[in-house]
Amino acid sequence: MQTWDAITSRRNVRTFADRPVAAADLDQILEAGRRSPSSQNWQPWDFILVTQREQLRELATVWRGAGHVAQPAATIVVVGPPADNEFHRAQFDLGQATMAMTLAAASLGIGSCHAGVADIQLARQLLGFPADRDWAFLVSLGYPADRPLTPIKTPRRRPFDQVVHCDHWA
Amino acid sequence: MQTWDAITSRRNVRTFADRPVAAADLDQILEAGRRSPSSQNWQPWDFILVTQREQLRELATVWRGAGHVAQPAATIVVVGPPADNEFHRAQFDLGQATMAMTLAAASLGIGSCHAGVADIQLARQLLGFPADRDWAFLVSLGYPADRPLTPIKTPRRRPFDQVVHCDHWA
Repeated sequence: MQTWDAITSRRNVRTFADRPVAAADLDQILEAGRRSPSSQNWQPWDFILVTQREQLRELATVWRGAGHVAQPAATIVVVGPPADNEFHRAQFDLGQATMAMTLAAASLGIGSCHAGVADIQLARQLLGFPADRDWAFLVSLGYPADRPLTPIKTPRRRPFDQVVHCDHWA
Repeated sequence: MQTWDAITSRRNVRTFADRPVAAADLDQILEAGRRSPSSQNWQPWDFILVTQREQLRELATVWRGAGHVAQPAATIVVVGPPADNEFHRAQFDLGQATMAMTLAAASLGIGSCHAGVADIQLARQLLGFPADRDWAFLVSLGYPADRPLTPIKTPRRRPFDQVVHCDHWA
C-alpha cells in the first residue's frame, strides 16, 4: 500500500475478524518498530509478540481499557527501558516506534489499537520481563471485523488551519 | 512510495540540497501529523511551518545541535501542549505525530531530522507562540544533499531476535 494510503487509512480498531495474521506480516510490523529512530540511537524498547489465545485473554485484564486485546490475532507488548535518558526521550521514542508499527500494519490491511497497562505486576507475571522494566503498553493487531481499512476523508481532528501556523504563531 | 519503502528509507538527513520543497508536499507532511492518533483524541500539538531562510538561520541557534535547521527548505516547529494529560501521553503522542510526518516526508523523497529546543525563550521570541507553551522541537525537511533516500538494508540497530521476544521474555 502507498504510504499516504496507509497514513490516511490507519484508525483504531477494537473488534477483530477471526482470521490469523501471517507470521511474515507480524515480523514486518515488528521490524518497522525495530528500525525506528531514537535519541542517540539508544533504542529504548523491547517487543513481546503474543499470539496464544489464552495468553491474550489473560493480557486483556491488565487494564480496564485493554479488553480488546483478548480478541485479535496478536498483540505486541512494548516494554519501556529501565530508566529514561538525559533528554527524557523514552516516551517520545516509544511513540515513534509505535507509529511506525501501526502504519506498517495499516499498509498490510491490519488494524491496531493501543492500550495502557495499569497492573504492571500482572503483566510481568504473564510475560516474564525483568523487575527493572516497570512500564509497558499493548498494541493489538488483527484484521478489522467491521470494515476494511480505507482512506478516511474527514478525520475527527482539529482543522488544518487551526493546527498549522505559517512562519509565526498568529 | 510504498509504505515499506518509506519505513526502510527514512533516515536522519543533516545536509540538504539547495532545492525547494513544493508547498503541496509540505502540506501533506503536516496533514500526516494532524491526522495522528492521540490519547482520547486530545491532539496535543501545534505546527509552525518555517520556510524563510533568515528565520531558519535564527531558529538554528535555539540549541547547539540544531545547526542543520539553517539549511533545509523548511522546518516544522512542533509545539507541545500547556500541560500533560492524566495519562502522561504528551511526549508519546508527539512522538507518534513526528513519525507520521517523517514517514510522509520519506515517501516523497524528502529527508528530515529532529532537533531539540534548549532556548525556549528565543524560540518563542522568533515564533510568537504563547507563554504557557514551554516545550517545542524542530523537524527539518529537505531533499538530501548526499544521496537520495533508498531502502537501508542493514540499519544500525539491535538485532531483531534481541529486540523481539515470542510469547514470553526469555
